[in-house]
Amino acid sequence: MINMKKCLSVLVLLMGSLTLSACGDDAAKPQSDSVQAPQQTFKWKLVTAWPKNFPGLGRAPETFAKNVERMSNGRLQIKVYGAGEIVPGFEVFDAVSQGTAEMGHAAAYYWKGKVPAAQLFTAIPFGMNATEMNGWFHYGGGMELWREVYKPFGIIPFAGGNTGVQLAGWFKKEINSIDDLKGLKMRIPGLGGEVLAKLGGVPVALTGGELFTSLQSGAIDATEWVGPYNDLAFGLYKAADYYYYTGWHEPGPALEFTVNEKAFNSLPDDLQAIIEIATRAVNQDMLDEYTAKNNEAMQSLLKKHNVDMRPFPDSVVAELKKASLAVMQEQAAADPMFAKVYKSYAEFQKGVTEYHRISEWEYYKNR
Amino acid sequence: MINMKKCLSVLVLLMGSLTLSACGDDAAKPQSDSVQAPQQTFKWKLVTAWPKNFPGLGRAPETFAKNVERMSNGRLQIKVYGAGEIVPGFEVFDAVSQGTAEMGHAAAYYWKGKVPAAQLFTAIPFGMNATEMNGWFHYGGGMELWREVYKPFGIIPFAGGNTGVQLAGWFKKEINSIDDLKGLKMRIPGLGGEVLAKLGGVPVALTGGELFTSLQSGAIDATEWVGPYNDLAFGLYKAADYYYYTGWHEPGPALEFTVNEKAFNSLPDDLQAIIEIATRAVNQDMLDEYTAKNNEAMQSLLKKHNVDMRPFPDSVVAELKKASLAVMQEQAAADPMFAKVYKSYAEFQKGVTEYHRISEWEYYKNR
Repeated sequence: MINMKKCLSVLVLLMGSLTLSACGDDAAKPQSDSVQAPQQTFKWKLVTAWPKNFPGLGRAPETFAKNVERMSNGRLQIKVYGAGEIVPGFEVFDAVSQGTAEMGHAAAYYWKGKVPAAQLFTAIPFGMNATEMNGWFHYGGGMELWREVYKPFGIIPFAGGNTGVQLAGWFKKEINSIDDLKGLKMRIPGLGGEVLAKLGGVPVALTGGELFTSLQSGAIDATEWVGPYNDLAFGLYKAADYYYYTGWHEPGPALEFTVNEKAFNSLPDDLQAIIEIATRAVNQDMLDEYTAKNNEAMQSLLKKHNVDMRPFPDSVVAELKKASLAVMQEQAAADPMFAKVYKSYAEFQKGVTEYHRISEWEYYKNR
Repeated sequence: MINMKKCLSVLVLLMGSLTLSACGDDAAKPQSDSVQAPQQTFKWKLVTAWPKNFPGLGRAPETFAKNVERMSNGRLQIKVYGAGEIVPGFEVFDAVSQGTAEMGHAAAYYWKGKVPAAQLFTAIPFGMNATEMNGWFHYGGGMELWREVYKPFGIIPFAGGNTGVQLAGWFKKEINSIDDLKGLKMRIPGLGGEVLAKLGGVPVALTGGELFTSLQSGAIDATEWVGPYNDLAFGLYKAADYYYYTGWHEPGPALEFTVNEKAFNSLPDDLQAIIEIATRAVNQDMLDEYTAKNNEAMQSLLKKHNVDMRPFPDSVVAELKKASLAVMQEQAAADPMFAKVYKSYAEFQKGVTEYHRISEWEYYKNR
């Protein structure tokens, strides 16, 4: 790049007077003058863990790529690939680490086998909601820790959207006490799955595409997915008669953009800034979309499809909370980096919970 | 710009072979090729309604300007001016409309005298919180209406940050019933002030800088400002012994960036995109900052300065709610554009409230 820039500078200097004299008024406006601009064009691949253009989750990387191309005047062109087009969804992290693709869009907790601490950058049971996660990331030290955790893999992470509170999901039978969770075969990933296991349930790993048939066939008794917007699109309500329970395990799951560090460092500063700011804009945009679309979908589920939506009984919530804390402590004991990140997460959550109790929560009660 | 671009294209074509041959490997990388880039540099002014670098509100336009300069590689340089440096805070809208400054950062409800509907793009009593406002703006038709409302003034608006739930403020006496509001002289702007007036109180218009002395001298009995982060910085707790009440009148006040339409249209598409996306990123960034900083400030107020924080009694909340609805209906009856925007706002709020009742609110209760 250095050579390239030098050459362009010389070129611009040489041609400067010709440009001005040949092109008339435009370049002579009082508020403008000529500068050279970087000229190199980059063509990148972005692999995702979602079907192409999947509502919400899958639209975010497309929006991001479009914004980057516009802002860079075509100098950074990013082609988005759905899960399985180049690599399967669960291999996005490796593909970005190895440079098979320059970027990825997925959820950090998918990499828990390799990086236990990554789970804390998505969601934990009874943890922080979307607004709180964003506060922690950008003004509470979360992002610095995320970078530290991914550094050994040559990956730079950015927050990449949030779905808002995810619901507990679809249950074929009523959950009246903690005994109803025993032996329950449920699709529930990550730490939520660990909590279910601790209470005697059987967490099952399934991709989104397998949910409907697994529910219908009875291979599983329950599943969570995202929330009304995506659950309605998947037609989950059609697989059986269900109880649809309110959320506890993923109160504000954050998605992630990942960038291969070498590829990022090869960009000039303006394109690096464009990536940073474009991820930040999409990070909010996804939540805005879920905020607007979930209600419409919920109304359809409740009124058109007669779904029975309800909270868990208090006693079940209390047991889930107890088991969640135990799971978090086990994870922290097993992995020093998990422990380090969890300390930061838990401290921020304690503070923000106290504040949101008198601001957000008090307000929700009043209005 | 068309002439300018044509000239550059010709220039690049003419010089292409020289550039390639003289500059070696860089331009021949498989993933890159040469394109021409726009060359004009723009120097803009951005006037604000805040003191320079005021925490949260005042930092946002500075962050925005820095991001724009980096992303545009210096082709769009925006200088930020505090309130009073070029125009007073309450004249930001006119300055942008007339082109005295190309951009502004303020709150839309400051322009209620000229544009009653603008109030709906900031906050209304018992209205939507930050997440909900953003959903309405970007996926619920709010932004399209905002553009329509500002169009006659030659201004393009963008959402420009959010403080989160603002508190009801600082009261010298306990509020035990609605009678305690009668005759109360309180600094409270916008629709909140109208509601207070309807209940027999006396809303007073004061800028931030006048609050402390007005409270101390007894010129006012109460004031709201923002929330712990800004209220602590202003030292409001020092002006007297106070009751600090939780919020109702500005549940998620949005700030605004305004851009002079002609200035915006004079930019090439990449710089227009950079402005759009940079406002979007700052829109979230401000909320992240408040989310992280409010708790720390609240702890200091409660524990170090012994502030008495509490909710209003239910009966007072009920009366405030009744009066708020009446004020909204009066405003809608008086101004057709207000009525049109309020219809969209109220419909979105109804839906999102139903969804947040089973997602956010249910979750806050459980954790």
